Amino acid sequence: MTLRANPWLAGVAVPPIAEAQGWIEGRSFPAEKPLIDVCQAVPGYAPPSALTQHMAAALQHPATHRYTDITGLPDLRQALAADIGRSYGLGDQPSVAAENVMITAGCNQAYCLATAALARAGDEIILPLPYYFNYQMWLEMIGVTARHIGFRPEAGGLPDLMEIEAAINAKTRALVLISPNNPTGSVYPPEYLLAALELCKRAGIALILDETYRDFMPHDEPPHALFRTHCWEGHLIHLYSFSKVFCLTGYRVGAIVADPKLIEEIGKAMDCVAICAPRIGQIAAIHGLKALDDWLHGNTGLMRDRLAALQKAFTRNDLGYEVVSAGAYFAYVKHPHRDRKAADVARRLADRQNVLALPGSMFGPGQDDYLRVAFANVEADKMPEIAARLAADAADLSW
Amino acid sequence: MTLRANPWLAGVAVPPIAEAQGWIEGRSFPAEKPLIDVCQAVPGYAPPSALTQHMAAALQHPATHRYTDITGLPDLRQALAADIGRSYGLGDQPSVAAENVMITAGCNQAYCLATAALARAGDEIILPLPYYFNYQMWLEMIGVTARHIGFRPEAGGLPDLMEIEAAINAKTRALVLISPNNPTGSVYPPEYLLAALELCKRAGIALILDETYRDFMPHDEPPHALFRTHCWEGHLIHLYSFSKVFCLTGYRVGAIVADPKLIEEIGKAMDCVAICAPRIGQIAAIHGLKALDDWLHGNTGLMRDRLAALQKAFTRNDLGYEVVSAGAYFAYVKHPHRDRKAADVARRLADRQNVLALPGSMFGPGQDDYLRVAFANVEADKMPEIAARLAADAADLSW
Repeated sequence: MTLRANPWLAGVAVPPIAEAQGWIEGRSFPAEKPLIDVCQAVPGYAPPSALTQHMAAALQHPATHRYTDITGLPDLRQALAADIGRSYGLGDQPSVAAENVMITAGCNQAYCLATAALARAGDEIILPLPYYFNYQMWLEMIGVTARHIGFRPEAGGLPDLMEIEAAINAKTRALVLISPNNPTGSVYPPEYLLAALELCKRAGIALILDETYRDFMPHDEPPHALFRTHCWEGHLIHLYSFSKVFCLTGYRVGAIVADPKLIEEIGKAMDCVAICAPRIGQIAAIHGLKALDDWLHGNTGLMRDRLAALQKAFTRNDLGYEVVSAGAYFAYVKHPHRDRKAADVARRLADRQNVLALPGSMFGPGQDDYLRVAFANVEADKMPEIAARLAADAADLSW
Repeated sequence: MTLRANPWLAGVAVPPIAEAQGWIEGRSFPAEKPLIDVCQAVPGYAPPSALTQHMAAALQHPATHRYTDITGLPDLRQALAADIGRSYGLGDQPSVAAENVMITAGCNQAYCLATAALARAGDEIILPLPYYFNYQMWLEMIGVTARHIGFRPEAGGLPDLMEIEAAINAKTRALVLISPNNPTGSVYPPEYLLAALELCKRAGIALILDETYRDFMPHDEPPHALFRTHCWEGHLIHLYSFSKVFCLTGYRVGAIVADPKLIEEIGKAMDCVAICAPRIGQIAAIHGLKALDDWLHGNTGLMRDRLAALQKAFTRNDLGYEVVSAGAYFAYVKHPHRDRKAADVARRLADRQNVLALPGSMFGPGQDDYLRVAFANVEADKMPEIAARLAADAADLSW
């Protein structure tokens, strides 16, 4: 290659999921020990046929093949605002309206647009460890410094707010939190999130809160009360995804919820990078919000069963592996191979146990003791098999 | 809004298409003078039913709802490489293979990824005037300086290569050309493009060549011979879109063709901003490339008829408006209202003549004499009506 890549991009790590998938490329797996793929968060079930039929019917309308408004279909913006009103208990005078909503081509894009709307090269954004890798990669490629906050397994993975406060300086534009967390599965308590927002308000920075997995919370309470705080729009940017909840990963549809004036600024960026989110995914998301409540609640229950099954399976004595935190979609698991690199452990699990999980090292420095397990991909009755294979790996002392 | 937007983004102009659409928001139009919308390039016809049926059938497969590889579906990469081989006359040993192809969520995204892969804040990229507005906006928001090259209506809109050469300095990373051009419709001759690539090679920069509208060329010859030059990959980045050719604007599917090593770098950026292009659009594009040749050639003919009809309609004596250049999808038209701002002219056309076109000022400085007319949106038999309304506007001296 004669062309020299932008050194900021050249310095970015290779995409982790693709790298892990490369470990099993071309391999076939025996029937008695099939591949257990817990590397990428992908719903293990298909979308309901009512949804695919709705999409097929939409294909008959000429408008389906055309751009939407930059901010997305008005019906979807309205439906998501209403859903947030219900899910967060906002009552009769909801503080989130359609004008707060920008539809994006997935939550990754929502994050890219939100951060680019606030920060430019030379600015800083705070990412607690372990981070979601794409969030780190994006900041690196646009020249924004990611300021890391230490991982606290002993505190359920919640980053220390005092450490966050100390990391804020004149260049800081935002704090990014993910709840339920990717990769740890940790569900951040409402009072913690409230304190984080207060901290951001005091510091004059934004709280970017990614709630991609909020539909798989381990309880039915509203995730937090931030939308009920006075002038939440002044400091909160909420990110969401329709990918997991309605099994629409391949359609790329997510959302940003923020101040309408910030949405206007983000709209400029959206126009450049995508013009609009794909319409068919937006049509599917509207149908999901309006007609799939029962189906969704069934899946929420399914995820809770999977979480319970995982935790039960991990109680076996000989396991060696330990669940540090788990919830919604992910478990963050401590492996028993002290002083081994997480990448070597994950690679060996793929090679010998036919279990594909991501090494903690893909989620930032100091994470070599851990693996991320996207347990929600796998049926509850498979959890003992995962545990058995991990136990076999723990017992396997040949390296 | 308490949050301060990134000043680079805050300084970006509002999205032009949305602004122009705002001029007619809420208006209704009489049957005898309906709206003629030539503001956004959107095929006026629907995709063929064979294509929508193919997509509907694909919805039945669980895989359709899932992510693809970051670089896109292998079949689509292969099919586009083969199509380029045919369309550019690459013969038996084609110099473009699947590994050169990255599928993107539309051509805007292709441009964002390609430029971000080469340039970082502080670098420069050369954009001839008039520019495609989103290309300027994106560079501004990431802090890359757009170096402009003067518009030469007398040279059919071809930018002066000597002026380009003189604009290159140590910070320059790429020259961006669009052929057939948006907004001018100008079709860049093969020898011009060859000279431009040679210039870029000598200067050690990339030629980013956007050929979104190449399926609507006014002739059947290969658009250029660049892919047949020695080591084209060292300096050429080709951008493409499936949006216009197969009426898939709403699905967001385009492509980058470049050095496989650069594709790898771009893949990191793609993983961050989108994970992958939407799969259903990719499935549609494969079908288009493999099964819609006849339909496509019919549309190419249709576009040529529209161009001829436009040019004929613009010969009327009382028009005042003059076609400066036209081809493929767009005409760049000089309006008769000297010393009036293009935005005022365009606004008045919308208000009084129910014709929605974009003012040249949206395409950069010094463009106040012009309007962009996306004539390809409109049937050939409507061209006299466009001309009649422009003539009425020219004769309307009340401001």
